[in-house]
Formats: sequence, C-alpha cells, structure tokens
Amino acid sequence: MTLPSWNDGRARTAVLDYLARIGDVLVAERVAVVDNDGTLWCEQPAYLQALFILERLGEQAAGDPRLAARPVVQALLAGDLAAATQDGPGPMLEVLLDTHAGLTTEEFEEAVADWIGRFRHPRFDVPVSGLVYQPMLELLDVLRDHDFRVFLVTGGGVEFVRAVSDRIYGVARDDVVGSAVEVAVARRDGRMVLVRQPTLAGSPSEGAPKVQSIQARIGRRPIVAVGNSAGDREMLEYAHTGRRPSLCLVVDHDDAEREYAYAGAAVTDPHAEPITDTARARGWTVVSMRRDWARVFP
Amino acid sequence: MTLPSWNDGRARTAVLDYLARIGDVLVAERVAVVDNDGTLWCEQPAYLQALFILERLGEQAAGDPRLAARPVVQALLAGDLAAATQDGPGPMLEVLLDTHAGLTTEEFEEAVADWIGRFRHPRFDVPVSGLVYQPMLELLDVLRDHDFRVFLVTGGGVEFVRAVSDRIYGVARDDVVGSAVEVAVARRDGRMVLVRQPTLAGSPSEGAPKVQSIQARIGRRPIVAVGNSAGDREMLEYAHTGRRPSLCLVVDHDDAEREYAYAGAAVTDPHAEPITDTARARGWTVVSMRRDWARVFP
Repeated sequence: MTLPSWNDGRARTAVLDYLARIGDVLVAERVAVVDNDGTLWCEQPAYLQALFILERLGEQAAGDPRLAARPVVQALLAGDLAAATQDGPGPMLEVLLDTHAGLTTEEFEEAVADWIGRFRHPRFDVPVSGLVYQPMLELLDVLRDHDFRVFLVTGGGVEFVRAVSDRIYGVARDDVVGSAVEVAVARRDGRMVLVRQPTLAGSPSEGAPKVQSIQARIGRRPIVAVGNSAGDREMLEYAHTGRRPSLCLVVDHDDAEREYAYAGAAVTDPHAEPITDTARARGWTVVSMRRDWARVFP
Repeated sequence: MTLPSWNDGRARTAVLDYLARIGDVLVAERVAVVDNDGTLWCEQPAYLQALFILERLGEQAAGDPRLAARPVVQALLAGDLAAATQDGPGPMLEVLLDTHAGLTTEEFEEAVADWIGRFRHPRFDVPVSGLVYQPMLELLDVLRDHDFRVFLVTGGGVEFVRAVSDRIYGVARDDVVGSAVEVAVARRDGRMVLVRQPTLAGSPSEGAPKVQSIQARIGRRPIVAVGNSAGDREMLEYAHTGRRPSLCLVVDHDDAEREYAYAGAAVTDPHAEPITDTARARGWTVVSMRRDWARVFP
C-alpha cells in the first residue's frame, strides 16, 4: 500500500490526488523541497544541532574559566534562551559560531558523526534514526517513485545535516540546502583544506532566504514544498504560485502523546503568523500528526 | 571505442588509466568538477555570455542617449576592454550588471534562450551546440559511465549556463555552480517571483571562491577536476590534494587552425602563472588540443 503509515483522510488523499494529476509535468520540473527540523525529524525538546553545539560549548567552558564566566555562556548552558538573548541574538550567535570555528570541514564532519553516534533522545531514548518521521520517509519514497528530485531545504546548518542526510533520508549531500558558515581556503601538510570561520555565509536559511537559496542552489521553482514553521512560509508560497500544479504540506505538531504539541515558529521571526493559519488561509494541506499519521516513528 | 575523438597519447592514456584504478572509490565520492568557458565550449573571440550582455547593452544605449554617452559604455560597445577598465573594473561591472537587473529569473531565462536560439559564431558560423568540444562530451560520458556525478563549476553566470546545460551537456540545472547576482523576492500579479539585482552575490566564481562554492554547493571534495585557466588552479589543487586518487586535466589551447591559440588567464587575476606551467609543475595532465584531439567540434 502507498503511504502505509498515513491514516486514510484529507492529507493522504491530497498527496495521492496530486500525484495522480501531474502526468503532464516534465520530469525536469519535478522538484520537491522539504524542510528538516520538525518536518522530517523531531526538533523537541531542542534542535539536534543545538544539542551538538552546546555539548562542545560545555567542554570549552570547562577548560576556559573566562569563557565559562560569560553570562551568555552560563545562560546557554543552563538552557535559558531568554537570558541568553537578553541583549539580542548577537552575543549568543557569536558564542555558538565560535564553538567549531578553526576546524576543517573534514574535522567538523567527524565531530558530527561522533556526536550522532553517541546521541540518545532524552525522552524517547532512541538514536537520531529513531527521531525521523516514518510517514515522511514514505512520502519521500513516493515522490521519488514519481520521478521527483527531493531536496532538503533546512534552516539548520547544511554541514550538520549533510553528515547524515544520505544515511537516514537517502538524500545526497549536494541535495541539502541550508545555513552555512564561511570557510577559508588554507594549506595544511601540503593539502588544501577548508577551515570553518566564526561567521555566517549570508543569511540564515529561513523565510525569503530559503527561496533565494532554492534559486541559487537548485535553479528551478519547486512544485512540492513541505514545512512546519513560519520560516517555511515563503518557500511554500514560491511553490504554490508557480505555473504548474503544486502540493504544499504543513505538518501540525498536535500530538503531545506520541511526539509534541507546539506551534511551529520561525527562529528569526518569533512573532510571525502561525504557519497552520497561513496554510488554512491559502488552501495548503495541513497534516495533523495526531489524526493523519498511524505511526510517528519507525 | 572509448573516447573516440581523442588521439592515442598521454592525455587519453591518463584518463583511461585513472578510470581503471578507482574501483575502490565509493560511488558517493565520485565527484567531477568541470569548468565551462574554454574547457567545455569555445570562449573565443569572447565569452558567449559577454556577447549576450553586450547585445542588450547596445539595445539599451540605442534608446538612452545618456547611457550611450558614457565612456565606459562606448568602450564596451567598441570591444575595447582596456579602455573600458581604465578606471578599474568597477564602472564596467556596474554597467554590465545593470543590463539585466529588474528582470525576473524567468524573464532572464527566456532572454538567454532567445539569444542562444539566434546566435551564430562569427568565425565558425555555427550555433552554440557547435562550439562544444566533442572530446569533452565523450569525457563527460565516460565519467558518468563510471558512476561519476559531473558538476559544471563555471566562472560565468550560473543562470546563463543553466539555460543550456541540460540540452548541450546533459548536466541538470542544479549541477551547475557559478557566479550569481543577488535576487529579491517580490510579488507580481499574486505570484512570487525573483527579481535580478545589479549586484553580485558573493565573489565571482574564480580561484579560491570556486573551491568555496564547491563546498557550499556540492559538499564533497571532487576527485576529478578539469579546467583551462589560472582561475581553475585552486579547484584543481583541491581535487589533487584529497585522500583519494585524483585526475586533474588542463586544456591547452594550442590549436590556432582548428580553434584558437592562447594562454588561459584568470579574469580576476590576469598576471597569474599560466595554468599549463602550474600543471606541469604539479604533474597534472595537460591536454593539447592540437595533439590530443582528433576532432574538436561535433
């Protein structure tokens, strides 16, 4: 059966109906863009990447009393986001970007792989592969069965997601689009390496920058877009207002029992309209985790 | 026969020997990066994109006496690059970037397609598809036969090359990496569109920025790199100094009779060491157009 972990209902029907009526769309135009945090894997109680970064910050603070004494570092390590951003996001961002600055891209990837290998989710006690939404894996498969190229377009760090995208989603590294830090070209022991800098390359990949990244990286307007937060609004609108039939899906986290119940906010714009309101106003399909998914995790 | 348009000789042998000894390299690591202007298609007497831009500039100048009166515009339309850059490249770049500012990405693509459809080469009297090097098409094919993903990494404009890359090279739009202009997100008649701005997004894709683009866009170190100018040096070095066997090829334009004879210079660094000198010093394979290619164009 197609989409076996989806309950029979409006969302599943919307996906199947859409796929049944795109026979005229050229394969070259079958581009799907899918958000990652909260859309493909669980982003609660915190972004996985944040946990990865905070572990490193804790290690650095343990060996550096001056760093440990900084109020922003103390707030971050206490998990107090409000205190960490009380002077705006700048000092927090500086500290977080500093954690892995100076590593080569190859060293960073090893650090991510090491952390992913050790990670267990605090509530579900599973590794990262157990935090992926099974219905979404099935959606990616059925899109590929219909000749779609599936791209991850994440607000998270592109290098972090690339380290696992192939293994857990079947998405190649070059099909991951996300936020990035600057890298400097350097030579070490006769080899050219790329060294991570403590600065973002361009804007974080949320909101309109997601659309700009899609153009820069993919060069085609998607016809399928899937998200779960206000940071995905522009990406969804871009797919929706093309000249081909489109499918726009918004995951509603309304399942406190099996996952979490919360409104998907944009990191860079916490007061934006809830994405489920936007979806209903524009006729995009809201996927209720509680009602539409027979099963959440693999 | 493999590589039928290549003469038996050092270059052809280097390619075939390399492909025979990469059996241990994972498919996920088989990434090839190939320059475009002068490597895949003829870049003389001028870059194709420059001819495209100058046609538009001529039209704009014809309808705008103030624009036509600017010395930099007069120099450009007379083909006098030295005069156009006598105050540095800034004023020239500003005029060139202005030619297509304000167009949506979709309108720009139509303009490129229209121009490509009309273009005939001044010396060879062929369309763009007749300016592609037949031996290079065969090289791309043999790389793909060996499970390589082939990416174009061009110093030229990514949107310009994407408009033709699939048709003439079999390279999908998202596998083209190049220089880009900023785009702004806008709405027209209820549709979200992307509007070209008169500013570059980041550095031109030459030299070290080619390597940074490879990391940003592809996220893997290539093991095959092909170029023809000093602007490809860093990209070649990056492939060469990885941990896997690599193949670095440099096209030497030494065939004034069938094509052109010139040293491949870097646009952004005209006084850089000739790339054929670098290639010989580092043991990269120089491909002599005159000796190694039985045939140049299709």
